[in-house]
Amino acid sequence: MDGEKKISSAVINRLPRYYRYLGDLLESDITRISSKELSEKMNITASQIRQDLNNFGGFGQQGYGYNVEYLYNEIKKILGLDRVYNLIVVGGGNIGQALVNYTSFEKRGFVITAVFDVNPRLIGMSIRGVEIYDVDMMEDYVKSNKVDVAILTLPRSQAAKAASDLASWGVKGIWNFSHVDLDLPKEVVVENVHLTDSLMTLLYKINEVNNESEMNS
Amino acid sequence: MDGEKKISSAVINRLPRYYRYLGDLLESDITRISSKELSEKMNITASQIRQDLNNFGGFGQQGYGYNVEYLYNEIKKILGLDRVYNLIVVGGGNIGQALVNYTSFEKRGFVITAVFDVNPRLIGMSIRGVEIYDVDMMEDYVKSNKVDVAILTLPRSQAAKAASDLASWGVKGIWNFSHVDLDLPKEVVVENVHLTDSLMTLLYKINEVNNESEMNS
Repeated sequence: MDGEKKISSAVINRLPRYYRYLGDLLESDITRISSKELSEKMNITASQIRQDLNNFGGFGQQGYGYNVEYLYNEIKKILGLDRVYNLIVVGGGNIGQALVNYTSFEKRGFVITAVFDVNPRLIGMSIRGVEIYDVDMMEDYVKSNKVDVAILTLPRSQAAKAASDLASWGVKGIWNFSHVDLDLPKEVVVENVHLTDSLMTLLYKINEVNNESEMNS
Repeated sequence: MDGEKKISSAVINRLPRYYRYLGDLLESDITRISSKELSEKMNITASQIRQDLNNFGGFGQQGYGYNVEYLYNEIKKILGLDRVYNLIVVGGGNIGQALVNYTSFEKRGFVITAVFDVNPRLIGMSIRGVEIYDVDMMEDYVKSNKVDVAILTLPRSQAAKAASDLASWGVKGIWNFSHVDLDLPKEVVVENVHLTDSLMTLLYKINEVNNESEMNS
């Protein structure tokens, strides 16, 4: 990526969606697509699509459209999905276990190699072959294995301390399911999945829609 | 909310976070807070906070700051969290079961009353007292109980059809964990939790940070 201009985070956030749609097209044996057709499928404007994809060089060809497989592979490279990532789960509760059981991750090269918990009833168990270790072993594990991402699913009270430990041990990113905002050095990337916030936003919007329709009736 | 001006979705998306921080303050017996103090805690500017909260009337008082409990309760009302919501889970797999097991939802008034699945091994089971029903019973259930939100955790191939059925039966919102974008009538609110997209975004950002530090070294 050296020498390239910085890509806006709005574009970056849309890339996985492009990748998903292009993957679907490939699976349906569709080899090329115009920005107009892709626009109708994805429900964003054709000009937005052209603008987004122009960030990564001129993939589209006038009168031909996009070569689906080429574009899919380019976005795959841009997203860094052409290599395998080593993930650990910190907190072996419901969400943590569900993520280990989520086989789609592996298809994309995201491999969960270990789970850590404090609960003696969970330690020593394994989920689909992934072992749950005592959290006391986490420092050694992270330092001796190349852990890219820690998936944090701890209760709020424990999350901040664990995240800052993980960062100091060299983890590069935290996928944060704990319901708390983390304050980490800027070289550690945090992506939040605040489920309760998301559900609250949904409920707010439902109330808003229903208030509007009451007002109009 | 009648007669009020429309609030921007950026503000709405921040409200759950205000609600969470104010809840934490209440639990710590802090009764009032200035926008400056709140700003330091939440890592957003004090002027942004004042601007956001001004949308809902002048809660803050010069020289006093915000009354935490009052503000908490106002935001609670705005978010519509002063009532109980009836939720169902559609798809009783890992993520669906994890959400049923997630007790924090109930504390906030989000009650999951039923789970639906096609898998005969799951049907008839119950998770924390919430029964898993045959998906054939879903239409009757939705029509005879007031279901506010369906939590969609189905495989991609089944999600679109189920969502459009649920919408036609009167469900007001879909909390969509299925890895597909839904195309529904505009009165049905959809909030997506595309976990794989979120993880891909995280990995992209990790690569970006590491490329930058390599370039600088």
